Amino acid sequence: MKCTATANSNIALIKYWGKADDKLFLPTNSNLSITLEGLNSHTTVDFSSDYKEDMVNIDGKNMEGEKKEKVVKQLNLIRNIANSNLKAKVVSKNNFPSAAGMASSASGFAALTVAACASLGMNLDKKQLSIISRQGSGSSCRSIYGGYVEWVKGKKSEGSYAVKVADENYFDIRDVIAIVEQEEKKVSSRAGMAETIKTCPLYKSRVDAAEDNLLKIKRAIKEKDFSEIGKIAEFDCLLMHATMIATIPSLLYWSPATIKIIKLVQEWREEGLESYFTIDAGPNVHILTLPENEKEIVKRLREINDVKDIKSCKIGGDAALTEKHLF
Amino acid sequence: MKCTATANSNIALIKYWGKADDKLFLPTNSNLSITLEGLNSHTTVDFSSDYKEDMVNIDGKNMEGEKKEKVVKQLNLIRNIANSNLKAKVVSKNNFPSAAGMASSASGFAALTVAACASLGMNLDKKQLSIISRQGSGSSCRSIYGGYVEWVKGKKSEGSYAVKVADENYFDIRDVIAIVEQEEKKVSSRAGMAETIKTCPLYKSRVDAAEDNLLKIKRAIKEKDFSEIGKIAEFDCLLMHATMIATIPSLLYWSPATIKIIKLVQEWREEGLESYFTIDAGPNVHILTLPENEKEIVKRLREINDVKDIKSCKIGGDAALTEKHLF
Repeated sequence: MKCTATANSNIALIKYWGKADDKLFLPTNSNLSITLEGLNSHTTVDFSSDYKEDMVNIDGKNMEGEKKEKVVKQLNLIRNIANSNLKAKVVSKNNFPSAAGMASSASGFAALTVAACASLGMNLDKKQLSIISRQGSGSSCRSIYGGYVEWVKGKKSEGSYAVKVADENYFDIRDVIAIVEQEEKKVSSRAGMAETIKTCPLYKSRVDAAEDNLLKIKRAIKEKDFSEIGKIAEFDCLLMHATMIATIPSLLYWSPATIKIIKLVQEWREEGLESYFTIDAGPNVHILTLPENEKEIVKRLREINDVKDIKSCKIGGDAALTEKHLF
Repeated sequence: MKCTATANSNIALIKYWGKADDKLFLPTNSNLSITLEGLNSHTTVDFSSDYKEDMVNIDGKNMEGEKKEKVVKQLNLIRNIANSNLKAKVVSKNNFPSAAGMASSASGFAALTVAACASLGMNLDKKQLSIISRQGSGSSCRSIYGGYVEWVKGKKSEGSYAVKVADENYFDIRDVIAIVEQEEKKVSSRAGMAETIKTCPLYKSRVDAAEDNLLKIKRAIKEKDFSEIGKIAEFDCLLMHATMIATIPSLLYWSPATIKIIKLVQEWREEGLESYFTIDAGPNVHILTLPENEKEIVKRLREINDVKDIKSCKIGGDAALTEKHLF
C-alpha cells in the first residue's frame, strides 16, 4: 500500500545534544520543542513486492551511501515490527534547506515513520510512532506531535517517547528564522554530539541544567509567560553551544552573521521589542516572539545583508497521513 | 621619591575567570600566561607631602570615579604596608588600547605596584610585588615576571602569587594579535566573572578542567612542544568562553570578526600553517605561532578588512623600574 504523510519540523527550546544510549537513541536529558508550521517533509512510502531493493529519493535526488543507509535502517526497524520483508520506494520532499540546522531530519523521519507504518498496514498510536521515529533520528519523535512537545528521555526504548505538553492553540508564539547559510554543515549533529560527550568536561553539568530548565519552561508554558519561555530557551541554547564550542575539536556552528543577529536580538529586547534567540547545530538563528512583534522582526531582518532568507512560523500541528489510510 | 616603572601586558594560556575570594583576589583556579613584549604600561608614581589628594592620570586623562578608585585602593594598600600617609600623583601611559581584552589593567597594575612600592622606599622581592599587584588587578600579578608565568591560586593572600615557569628565552613562541575592536568592552572582566560564578551552571566543571589543563601545559612548555601548548591554550580559552556565554545575562565578548578569524586559524592549521587562537574577555584574537610562521600570519591578517590593527609580540621580560632606584 502506498501512503503519504507530512510532518512539520520543530525547534527545541530545551535542547537535545547527546545520547545516553547510542543504539536506542535515548537522550541524556529530556527536552522540549515547538512544532513549526509550514516547514515540512512530505513523504511517500510504497512497500511492494515490485521492488527488489529499497529506493530512497529526497528532494529529487536518489540517495546513496550514508544518507540512504539511515533511511534503510529505519525501514528495517519498521519491517521488523510488521514482520514484513517487502522492499520500499521512499520519495520525500522538504520545503526548506536540509541539514543547515533546520532539523530536516526531524520532519523527515517523522513523516517517513508515519507513512511507512501505514504502508505496512500497522495502526499504531502516536506514542508508538514517536518511539519508532526516535530510533531513526532522535528529535524526530517530537515532530509526531504538534504544539509544545516534550521528549521524555526514559531508561529503555519503550520509555523514551514524545508527549504533547500543550497543543498548537494553547499559547501562540512565533519563530522567525533568519537563514544566514543554506549549505550543509560540516559536522552532523549525530557525529558532533558523540564528540561532545566524549571530550567536553562541561557536558555533565549541562545535562543537569537542561533538566532544571525543562521543569521551569513547562511551568512557563502552562502560565503562558512568554518572557520566561524566551529567557529559558535562550539560556538553554547557550548552554548547549557552550558544550559544543568546548568540544575537541571545537564545534563552532556559528558564523559571523550568527553573532551579528544574536547581538541585534539583545539590542531589540533592550529597546522593548521582546524577542529571544535559539540556535540548533548550525548558523541560522530562530527568533522567538509574540504574534504582535512578528512583522517588525521580519522587517528588521530584511534589512540585514547577511540574512539570505526568512521563514516565519506559527506553532504547527501533528504529523499526519495526507491520504485517507489507516492512521 | 618619584619612581617610574614599566610592565608588559600578558596573555593567559590557562585562563583566570572568577575569584574564590572577592576581597583578596584569590582566583578559583591557578592559571598561566606569557608576558607580551612591547605591550606595556609606563607608570610614574610620586608620593609627596606636596599633594593634598591622590591624582591619577592615564593616557593623558585625569581619572575620576570608579577608575580612579581602583588605583587609589591600590595606593592605600601600599601606603598601609609602608606605614605612610603621603598622597601620590600617578601618571600612566599604555602603548595599546585599554580595556578591549588587551589586559591593560594587568600591565597597568604591575607597573603601578612596582613604581609605588619603590616610591615609598620599600625594597620588596618579586613574589611580594606579585602579591600586592594581585590585589589591585588579579592577572597583573603575572606581569611582574617575564616569560611563562603561573599564578598559583593559594588559599590565603600570602599563598597567591606569580611564579616564573620558564623565562622569555626558554622557548620562543609569538603572539600575533588581530585587533578587531578598539573600544572599551561593555561588561568589565571584574563584573563579568562575578556574574559567571553566580549564574553559570558549567562553572565548577570548567575550574576543574583548568587545573588539569595547567598541569598539561606546564609539561608541554617544559618539553617545548608547541603543538601541545597551542592545543591546550585554545581548548582552555574555549572552556572559559563557554562559561561566559552561558552566564545570565550572556557574556558574549565575541564579535562577528572574532568568529571569522577563529575559523581562518582553523583553516590555516589544516593546511599546515600551524597556529592556535586564544581570546580574553573581548573580541580580539591572539594567534599563537612559532617564529617562522609569524610573518605569514601577519601578512594574511593584513588582507582581512575587519582587522583594524595587528600587534606581533615576542615573549617579554620582567616588570622593572626604568630609573635607578631601590628595585
